[in-house]
Amino acid sequence: MLKRLLLLLLVGIFTQQSFSQHQLSKTLNLMPWPKEINANSEVFLIRSDFTIQINYADETKVTHAATKFLRRLSTRTGIFLKNGFPSKNNEKASLQITFQKVVAPVLGVDESYKLEVKNKQILLKATTDIGAIRGLETLLQLVKNTKYTTYFSGVSITDAPRFLWRGLMIDVARHFMPVEVIKRNLDAMAAVKMNVFHWHLTDDQGFRVESKVYPKLHQLGSDGLYYTQAQIKEVVKYATRLGIRVIPEFDVPGHASAILAAYPALGSKDGYDYSIERNAGVFDPTLDPTNDETYVFLKNLFTEIAPLFPDEYFHIGGDENEGKHWSESKEITAFKKKHQLKTNHDLQTYFNIKLEKILLKLHKKLMGWDEIMTPTMPTTAVIHSWRGAHEGLKESTLIAAAKKGYQSVLSNGYYIDRMLSVKHHYGVDPIGDAVLTKQERARILGGETTMWSELVTPLTVDSRIWPRTAAIAERYWSHKSVRDEDNMFKRLNVVSFQLEELGLTHLRNKNVILRNITQNQNTSSLQVLSAISEPLKIYSRNSGGTEYQTYSPFALFADACTADAADAISFAKVVDLHVANSTKITQKKLLYFFQKWMKGYTQFQKLKPNPKLARLNPLYSNLNAVSELFYKALKENSRVNDGAVMLAINKLKVPVEDVEVVLVKSLIKLKRSLIK
Amino acid sequence: MLKRLLLLLLVGIFTQQSFSQHQLSKTLNLMPWPKEINANSEVFLIRSDFTIQINYADETKVTHAATKFLRRLSTRTGIFLKNGFPSKNNEKASLQITFQKVVAPVLGVDESYKLEVKNKQILLKATTDIGAIRGLETLLQLVKNTKYTTYFSGVSITDAPRFLWRGLMIDVARHFMPVEVIKRNLDAMAAVKMNVFHWHLTDDQGFRVESKVYPKLHQLGSDGLYYTQAQIKEVVKYATRLGIRVIPEFDVPGHASAILAAYPALGSKDGYDYSIERNAGVFDPTLDPTNDETYVFLKNLFTEIAPLFPDEYFHIGGDENEGKHWSESKEITAFKKKHQLKTNHDLQTYFNIKLEKILLKLHKKLMGWDEIMTPTMPTTAVIHSWRGAHEGLKESTLIAAAKKGYQSVLSNGYYIDRMLSVKHHYGVDPIGDAVLTKQERARILGGETTMWSELVTPLTVDSRIWPRTAAIAERYWSHKSVRDEDNMFKRLNVVSFQLEELGLTHLRNKNVILRNITQNQNTSSLQVLSAISEPLKIYSRNSGGTEYQTYSPFALFADACTADAADAISFAKVVDLHVANSTKITQKKLLYFFQKWMKGYTQFQKLKPNPKLARLNPLYSNLNAVSELFYKALKENSRVNDGAVMLAINKLKVPVEDVEVVLVKSLIKLKRSLIK
Repeated sequence: MLKRLLLLLLVGIFTQQSFSQHQLSKTLNLMPWPKEINANSEVFLIRSDFTIQINYADETKVTHAATKFLRRLSTRTGIFLKNGFPSKNNEKASLQITFQKVVAPVLGVDESYKLEVKNKQILLKATTDIGAIRGLETLLQLVKNTKYTTYFSGVSITDAPRFLWRGLMIDVARHFMPVEVIKRNLDAMAAVKMNVFHWHLTDDQGFRVESKVYPKLHQLGSDGLYYTQAQIKEVVKYATRLGIRVIPEFDVPGHASAILAAYPALGSKDGYDYSIERNAGVFDPTLDPTNDETYVFLKNLFTEIAPLFPDEYFHIGGDENEGKHWSESKEITAFKKKHQLKTNHDLQTYFNIKLEKILLKLHKKLMGWDEIMTPTMPTTAVIHSWRGAHEGLKESTLIAAAKKGYQSVLSNGYYIDRMLSVKHHYGVDPIGDAVLTKQERARILGGETTMWSELVTPLTVDSRIWPRTAAIAERYWSHKSVRDEDNMFKRLNVVSFQLEELGLTHLRNKNVILRNITQNQNTSSLQVLSAISEPLKIYSRNSGGTEYQTYSPFALFADACTADAADAISFAKVVDLHVANSTKITQKKLLYFFQKWMKGYTQFQKLKPNPKLARLNPLYSNLNAVSELFYKALKENSRVNDGAVMLAINKLKVPVEDVEVVLVKSLIKLKRSLIK
Repeated sequence: MLKRLLLLLLVGIFTQQSFSQHQLSKTLNLMPWPKEINANSEVFLIRSDFTIQINYADETKVTHAATKFLRRLSTRTGIFLKNGFPSKNNEKASLQITFQKVVAPVLGVDESYKLEVKNKQILLKATTDIGAIRGLETLLQLVKNTKYTTYFSGVSITDAPRFLWRGLMIDVARHFMPVEVIKRNLDAMAAVKMNVFHWHLTDDQGFRVESKVYPKLHQLGSDGLYYTQAQIKEVVKYATRLGIRVIPEFDVPGHASAILAAYPALGSKDGYDYSIERNAGVFDPTLDPTNDETYVFLKNLFTEIAPLFPDEYFHIGGDENEGKHWSESKEITAFKKKHQLKTNHDLQTYFNIKLEKILLKLHKKLMGWDEIMTPTMPTTAVIHSWRGAHEGLKESTLIAAAKKGYQSVLSNGYYIDRMLSVKHHYGVDPIGDAVLTKQERARILGGETTMWSELVTPLTVDSRIWPRTAAIAERYWSHKSVRDEDNMFKRLNVVSFQLEELGLTHLRNKNVILRNITQNQNTSSLQVLSAISEPLKIYSRNSGGTEYQTYSPFALFADACTADAADAISFAKVVDLHVANSTKITQKKLLYFFQKWMKGYTQFQKLKPNPKLARLNPLYSNLNAVSELFYKALKENSRVNDGAVMLAINKLKVPVEDVEVVLVKSLIKLKRSLIK
């Protein structure tokens, strides 16, 4: 009873605290939301005499971040700062940055900071330099303005992350991503306090690292699209300066077509014609785990590659190996029998354990996708949980792994290439309601957002990662109770725009694609259409993996569209309001939308035609037909003809050019209300 | 008499030929316009079975260009090509590429090609691989479409450049430009057949190359913003593959603040506090040409750096040295006397001749800005002609240099940082009416567009270079007679859009800046304003060089505006038509513009205010006032009040936020016609 009382009391306090945060989150656009925050009634006015002092000698990360802070502040506000660099000897500086030590970004490093914004000065204090740069990002989110002034909001913040591992994986195998794509995404990660960049460097479609020991890997396995070792070092250095760890992934024994295109003798099937894969999917080419040469190769390769990556963790993939070629091989079958390996899973574990020993000598911890978690796999391995309901499991493997003694990281629920709403991902809590011991909880390192690149290119990758990943970053950093969706959307909209300021291309490249489709004509009608259209979800675009090849065009209308189509969200809200309580205002708002879509179609039809526009016509024409019916009914306050409307809606439902107009649910809701 | 007859005949033939080209240039958007082109009545339909054969083994440049050609073709047309790569064994391939030899991009290399597009096949023939890749760019400009089909226009082209040296200089010292900025600009250069990238790597504001011999140069002279040697090699490799030469420039003995910030002992003034310069202008810090250590330093540095650049030419700057510190130094004055060097120019020539010897040992030809052309300078040096009327000369130094026996390259007239209309640069012919001997003509290598970066950053640099540089590239490549401005503008508009497809950011980044200014509100009212506004020209922005520092914000309204503001050009044409012959149509068109500007202002006023918008208000409000006056007069067919209108126009004339509304001339013209 006492326990329950205590619990109620705690819940009460907690609710109050989170409520007060929620009040502030209406006016402040911080993301991720800090652990503790209190407003004071002060503001720090930003003027041209703004200066920074760093209270630490011989330092790189904070000096770099503070210099960039000044550039970003100047760019955002338009203020000409007299002083373009932080200094070491300026006790009167506007912003005082203090910390105790310089650290490398490793798992579990202290990232906490305290930030105090007052009238006369701003104090940023941290234990480590990484904590200090996290705090700088928070401060930059506190910039506000009136008509004539710009200021930092007065607050006291005490902040620290909930999870140690807050990652983003980028697949550079399916589509190669040049260094600048990686760098700008690292900048964005740092802006929302993420700290792990997982670099998926190899797969069936490409081996993306220069190897001096096995040069055929990049020569024959990459179509010339790979990182030189100098570039790898450059990226790691760049990430390190942002307090971001870099975890390389070399996916073995499956997903190995590109490796085997270079070194076919390591394959499991004699005489197989290994080549770089051009389609998407799961393929058969697999390293031969019974061949000693395989381990010589991996040992030499990892010995060459591992030192490029200072982080302790090393990802060996290990996923989606169905062992088809293993089962087909007499030799491999005999080997399994001899070594009492009953299944292909057992054989893969045999392989993994050998790998773990190789990595151990290189002072690396083996990490792998959750298929590696077999009964005989040592708990020294780190389990990357990716499978869940979609893969036929009851729940993700994360909690099970932690209970079995493995460190584990969650990606199930954070597959942003499925093109789902940010609400979906934001709602996934790594721990949820699981009851864990302290030790088990400690093994859950955090989460990782995965950007698989079958359907993205450097032109579109940012718009698939951002802004949704910023909200997921909040899930990794902030308290579980921070989960109001509307508030998240409000803040995300601001953060998204600020990421553009930082160099991300998710907003600007939309119009690039639309200009391409119109061939340099006015894109406004396509903007109208794209604001209610989303690319097909959950792998129904390119289902089967053979419609698109790696060299297919990815500047189609679907590539200009994103999840969370803005007008569709607004329209759904208006429909809900109207259905609940129709007023002149809700009616007017609905009319506005239908009119916008009809006008859009009229404009669209005036464009000089081309094949790409012609293919979009059915989509727009269906939208126009639906809009005309609703517009008439609403305007005339008449009922809609159920049959005619459903016919039009059903037409609109059909995906065109890999895009769906995401109004259908709202339209049906509205239709019902208009029949009543 | 016979001679004159012959001349008339030649002019006749020539006029006819250029006329027929002009006819084709109405329908084809080639830029630069080819030497000879004839249309046939055929078309090559582009379908998914499009393929390329390269008739040459073991080749890099063309394979790379052909692969990129397929990607670009697919992206532009939206066609899913079945075959993503060129092949070596496909005689039935749609496009047959044939050439005789692989060459390095050196001065004078054969860049000619022949291209024949017929119903069944396309033949591209060249002597060298570089000629072949030039031809591929032409072919890509021949893509056209109907509503349902896409095709290459049927033509026969025989093409070769007019000038051997078709360059773009990018200054990475005043503002550092990361590797990706350089790479995308190299892509754009190749798209318009330019072949020299002049890399202005050092200046008062930064030393941008890693030196292992003198590491303080990049450590103390660059704010951490420099290219590693690996990156230099990467860029040179990238350029080479595009058939582009890379000429590095190390600006000495002036423009040397960054060098002297690192190695002050090499300076001409004892005890001077050398530091990286933050302002723009001409500064005093100068290497000491009387100090033996200077030559040891330059010898060691050039010995380290020169091998990174395979090209024979090496640019030592040499410009704008006023020798102030030399005159102030007793030792240097004594040295001059001792060596019978009367002027500081003579002393600089002494320095240059020493440099030339150092470079000769490194197998490099010395190139320098035209100040190096003193009477005693050997004619082995290459003169880069930059001064002209603006610098107080009667004409550029180009012709004089050629007549004196120097190889020479023209940049005077191609200073795109002056923000003039493309018409101005397009009208500058390197040779003009100069009468030259064959030898003198041969010494005129070509031209170079200069992008000085005092007022540009990676965000805006593309919009300063492109599209204007594409028209200048035509000046360098095409026959002198290709000079119709309207036709150039028509083609340039298409090429500009295609450069965006290639990755250039000149179009997309405009809205990035406008979003920044509005703070993520609707930017349409600012788009309206920017379509008639241009940044201040001919160095009147930041005149004096101290308003902006290198770290000032360059995301202001002026940075979103460009030369050749589109609506201002259209408006001027309508005004001319109206003044010549006012009709209902011209009246309606004029009303459209004034209404657009008034509406724009209404929208602008509805934006949530911020300091950046507030600063723009006077500009928009002045535009609105003028528009109201003219709108009323035109609408009511009434006369305008001269005094009131001139008052309003004079207000509008005043630059605001470093921008001018470029309507004034047209408005005054229109006003006169309305008073009559």
